[in-house]
Amino acid sequence: MYKSVTRPTLIINEAACRKNIRRMAEKAIASGVLFRPHFKTHQSLKVAGWFREEGVEAITVSSTEMAMKFAGDGWKDITLAFPVNPREIPVLDALAAKVSLNLLVDSPEVALMLSRKMNNPAGLFIEIDTGCGRSGLKPVQEDAIAKTAGLISATRHISFRGFLTHSGETYRASDPGRVREIYAHTVSVLGDLKAVYPDAIISIGDTPTCSIIENLGEVDEIRPGNFVFYDLMQMAIGSCSIGDIAVSVACPVAGIYPDRCEVLIYGGAVHLSKEYLGDKERHFGLAGIYGPEGQIVPYAGTRVVSLSQEHGIIRTDADMLSKLKHGDLLGVLPVHSCLTANLLQHNTLIV
Amino acid sequence: MYKSVTRPTLIINEAACRKNIRRMAEKAIASGVLFRPHFKTHQSLKVAGWFREEGVEAITVSSTEMAMKFAGDGWKDITLAFPVNPREIPVLDALAAKVSLNLLVDSPEVALMLSRKMNNPAGLFIEIDTGCGRSGLKPVQEDAIAKTAGLISATRHISFRGFLTHSGETYRASDPGRVREIYAHTVSVLGDLKAVYPDAIISIGDTPTCSIIENLGEVDEIRPGNFVFYDLMQMAIGSCSIGDIAVSVACPVAGIYPDRCEVLIYGGAVHLSKEYLGDKERHFGLAGIYGPEGQIVPYAGTRVVSLSQEHGIIRTDADMLSKLKHGDLLGVLPVHSCLTANLLQHNTLIV
Repeated sequence: MYKSVTRPTLIINEAACRKNIRRMAEKAIASGVLFRPHFKTHQSLKVAGWFREEGVEAITVSSTEMAMKFAGDGWKDITLAFPVNPREIPVLDALAAKVSLNLLVDSPEVALMLSRKMNNPAGLFIEIDTGCGRSGLKPVQEDAIAKTAGLISATRHISFRGFLTHSGETYRASDPGRVREIYAHTVSVLGDLKAVYPDAIISIGDTPTCSIIENLGEVDEIRPGNFVFYDLMQMAIGSCSIGDIAVSVACPVAGIYPDRCEVLIYGGAVHLSKEYLGDKERHFGLAGIYGPEGQIVPYAGTRVVSLSQEHGIIRTDADMLSKLKHGDLLGVLPVHSCLTANLLQHNTLIV
Repeated sequence: MYKSVTRPTLIINEAACRKNIRRMAEKAIASGVLFRPHFKTHQSLKVAGWFREEGVEAITVSSTEMAMKFAGDGWKDITLAFPVNPREIPVLDALAAKVSLNLLVDSPEVALMLSRKMNNPAGLFIEIDTGCGRSGLKPVQEDAIAKTAGLISATRHISFRGFLTHSGETYRASDPGRVREIYAHTVSVLGDLKAVYPDAIISIGDTPTCSIIENLGEVDEIRPGNFVFYDLMQMAIGSCSIGDIAVSVACPVAGIYPDRCEVLIYGGAVHLSKEYLGDKERHFGLAGIYGPEGQIVPYAGTRVVSLSQEHGIIRTDADMLSKLKHGDLLGVLPVHSCLTANLLQHNTLIV
């Protein structure tokens, strides 16, 4: 299978991917919220086109380079969901002249820099840290929030859009119940802010929440990204089933070691990333043989147990081993598809 | 400092890097061994030129793409130190028409494929697993070694070069004494093979061994790669001192959080990789402010404590925090420079 594949290649299953996109787009419509998907996971103009076919016009990115790439592909409404890096203000200003650009701040200091240095119109969200502990102002920092909002409102070119959060703590949830608790807390906190700033857009973003919560009507906008491909981490949280995982990495078998029931694949940390699951029994992906539709059903217990730069070691059993030959392809379901797809963005095959 | 740096950038300290290259080149000469450095760490034509200035003509790479890249830059003697992936034999054959190419096998099966499918002359090493447990035939597999060597010798175009090992188990060593034990075992095992195959080249490769062992005269060839940059992992093993680390990642400060003594840098898993050090107190790199020579001296306890795709969180103390402003640059010493340099290979600054 995949005779054209000679080296580690991201296999994108178009049917599974389109199903993930459609399901989320339909949920957004049913919830009455704006669907502004995060394109950091796929970073692909081709996959972006599948979103366009579902009616998506507004997108999220996480870097200036991504914003410019998708702007060049005709996307006109872009939110850069990373707190503004002051060193990039000139390039952001240039971009704001071309597209409807929303930026993110989590301090009055950077809001002030923007008010002084931006010449083109842009929207500005204030990031709120509702519990993730990564970036954002805490809800209790009422003075800093008010000062930031005030600076924005006083700046001619810049419009205050609302409050944005990334509930990344859902990535540490071990079951959907915990995701529901986090969502309830998040919308409660953001609802309190909306009471003070009634025109503010409330924007949330993580894939576990957007996958698990049935109706997202308590917010105004959702920005999930990972759901387009999903992965083993999302499956462990309960965001998806194995059939929803729309990517795998096709890796040639380069060594077979019956004495230790292990296989060397051409596929290492520079292809899969070093993201892992499990504590004692750590693994970097589950592996199996491609089915006729390009789907991977991991063979029981067959997993990537170690990675170096280009080498991956897969542990399996004698039965699986007896079926493999040097040069066969194994498919690896990634632990974290965002990192894997980033590494393999220039080496993909859509099936 | 580095006003041109607007996003995460690999800063290569030329003086430190050239010193690392010269020291290893001089050790190889003093030991009477061939220095065939591994270029997988830097993947840079510019850094390759610094090796050339030290008299290096023979190199090692870990992928066919790297082999073609350096062949295109005039390198004529290349070993691809990854067991031959049967799906790439046609492109390897084409490459063998252009340069002196050495390949690697660890099975009679792949040796047979090569004997049938290669039309151009190539050298072939047999990989031996002296204890790493990654790839290679075990020394006790005498029949498989003999069969592989026999198949190679019987093939007109292919010459048997010798035995190659990567003692990657030194990466798990916690002190130089353990590295010395591993080296003693490695050369003993390979010496036994040389007794049977007296014309075989004995080739070893890991940076801890090549850095810590004073005289490498018991082997014929060394292929270290990481030493060109070194990193925190090598420092922990005892392969280098902090001043030898020749790369850092310059990351703009995008958020400052005094309540938790943390800083958000623009610099995440897609820039640094998720390689970490420490068990309970895990970190993804140590950070500090650039000195006048472009050196990073990590500020006490200032480390990257978490990473997502583009976000890095640095924990520090109140004193350091009080000195930082949004838009300042922090320098991060990487845990594993091979993975970091791979991610940032198209965004580097030589100082």
